[in-house]
Amino acid sequence: MAATQALFLSLEGIDGSGKSTQARRLADWLRAQGRDPVLTREPGGAPGAEEIRRLLVEGDPDRWSPETEILLFTAARRDHLERTIHPALATGRDVVTDRFADSTRVYQGATRGDLRALVDDIHARVIGIEPDLTLVLDMDPEVALTRGLARGSGEDRFEEFGLEFQHRLRAGFRALAAEAPGRCVLIDASRDADAIAAAIRDAVAARL
Amino acid sequence: MAATQALFLSLEGIDGSGKSTQARRLADWLRAQGRDPVLTREPGGAPGAEEIRRLLVEGDPDRWSPETEILLFTAARRDHLERTIHPALATGRDVVTDRFADSTRVYQGATRGDLRALVDDIHARVIGIEPDLTLVLDMDPEVALTRGLARGSGEDRFEEFGLEFQHRLRAGFRALAAEAPGRCVLIDASRDADAIAAAIRDAVAARL
Ligand SMILES: Nc1ncnc2c1ncn2[C@@H]1O[C@H](COP(=O)(O)OP(=O)(O)OP(=O)(O)O)[C@@H](O)[C@H]1O
Ligand SMILES: Nc1ncnc2c1ncn2[C@@H]1O[C@H](COP(=O)(O)OP(=O)(O)OP(=O)(O)O)[C@@H](O)[C@H]1O
Ligand SMILES: [Mg+2]
Ligand SMILES: [Mg+2]
Repeated sequence: MAATQALFLSLEGIDGSGKSTQARRLADWLRAQGRDPVLTREPGGAPGAEEIRRLLVEGDPDRWSPETEILLFTAARRDHLERTIHPALATGRDVVTDRFADSTRVYQGATRGDLRALVDDIHARVIGIEPDLTLVLDMDPEVALTRGLARGSGEDRFEEFGLEFQHRLRAGFRALAAEAPGRCVLIDASRDADAIAAAIRDAVAARL
Repeated sequence: MAATQALFLSLEGIDGSGKSTQARRLADWLRAQGRDPVLTREPGGAPGAEEIRRLLVEGDPDRWSPETEILLFTAARRDHLERTIHPALATGRDVVTDRFADSTRVYQGATRGDLRALVDDIHARVIGIEPDLTLVLDMDPEVALTRGLARGSGEDRFEEFGLEFQHRLRAGFRALAAEAPGRCVLIDASRDADAIAAAIRDAVAARL
C-alpha cells in the first residue's frame, strides 16, 4: 500500500451505540479492499494503556474526579499514540480506533462541569493529532443502554452514571460533530448493523 | 490546634536520600508538639493514587515515555490532593508528604529531555498548590543508591535508570531549591539520621 495514504479513522458515540461492532466491520472491509488496517480501541490499545484502562472502566462512578479522569485518559491516549497509532501510520497502515479524543471531550469535557478548556489544552500539549475521519454513531440512549447492559462485561463504570448522563453524552457528540463538520460524519446508529456498516463504508470510501 | 495555621510540608531528594525516614521522624516530632499531622507520600497517598503508583514504580524503565509519566504522576497527585491533602489542611491538620510536585519537575522535567514547561503547564491547570516548606535532602548519589537498593522493595523502576541519572536528579533538585529559596531548604543528608532530623526540625520550627 505504499502508494495510498494511510487513514486514521475513529468511531465515537454513547455506550452501546455499536462502535465496537462497526469498528470490526470497517476493519474487515478495509482488509477486503487490500489494505492492512490496525484495529484498536481506547482507553487502551497498547499494553500500558490497557492497564490504565482498567483503572478507568472498573469500580465506582465517583472513583475519580473529572480532572483526574482527564489526566488518566490522556496518559492512556499518549501511550496508545506512541506505541500503536504512530508506528502503524508511519508504515502506511490504516488505523481504525474504537473511541479517541472526542470521547474525552464529551465524557469529561461536557457532562460534569465545563472542563472542555482543560481537555483541549492538555490535548494540544501531548496529543495534537486528529483522525482523518470520525464516524459519530448517533442514537437514542434508551435503546443503546439496553444493548450495552446486555453484554455484562463488568466494564460498566460510565454506564452506571445513568440515562440522564447518556442523554447529555448524545447531545455532546452531536455538538462536536457540528463543530468539526470536515472531520466528523454523523451516522444514524438506530438501524440494523448492515445498514450502519454501509453508511460508514460510503463515508470512508469518499476519503480513499 | 484551631489557632495555629496548618502547614503543608514536603520532603524531596534522590532515591535513597532518607525522605521516608525523615518524613516519619518529622511527623513524630509534630505530634510531640501537640499537633495532628497527616503523614503521606507520592506517588500515592489516596486509594486511587496508590493504584496509579503501582503502574509508575514497577516494571521496565522504558515502560512509559516521560510525557505519559507526567500525566500519570499528575493524575495521582490530583487524586492525592482531592482525597487527602486538601481535606487535612481544611480541618487544620498539618500534612507531611514524602515527595510532591518537585519530584515530577526534576524526574520528568529535567532529566530526559526538557519537559519542564509541560510539567509546569499541567501543574498550573490541575494542581496549583505548593507546599509551605520543602526539605530537599541533598547527598552523593553513590551513597544514596547503595542505601536504597539495600531495601529490595521491588519498587525500583527509577533506580534502574542508573547512577548517571541519579547525578542529574541531584543537580535538578539543587537547581530547584535555588529557584525557590523562599520555599525550599537544602538539607545535607549525608549525615546520620539524628543530625538530619534536627536540621529539619529547625527549618520547620521557624515556620510554626
Ligand atoms: N445495529 C445494531 N442493532 C442492534 N444491536 C446492535 C447493533 N449494533 C450492535 N448491537 C449490539 O449492541 C451491543 C452493543 O454494541 P457494541 O458493543 O458494538 O457497542 P459499543 O458502542 O462498542 O458499546 P460500548 O460503548 O459499551 O463499548 C452488542 O451486544 C451488539 O451486539
Ligand atoms: N541518615 C542516614 N544514614 C544512613 N542510612 C540511612 C539514613 N537515612 C535513611 N537511611 C537508610 O537508607 C535507606 C533509604 O532511606 P529512605 O527509605 O528513608 O530513603 P528514601 O529517600 O525514602 O528512598 P526512596 O527514594 O527509594 O523512597 C533505608 O534503608 C534507611 O534505613
Ligand atoms: Mg465497545
Ligand atoms: Mg521512600
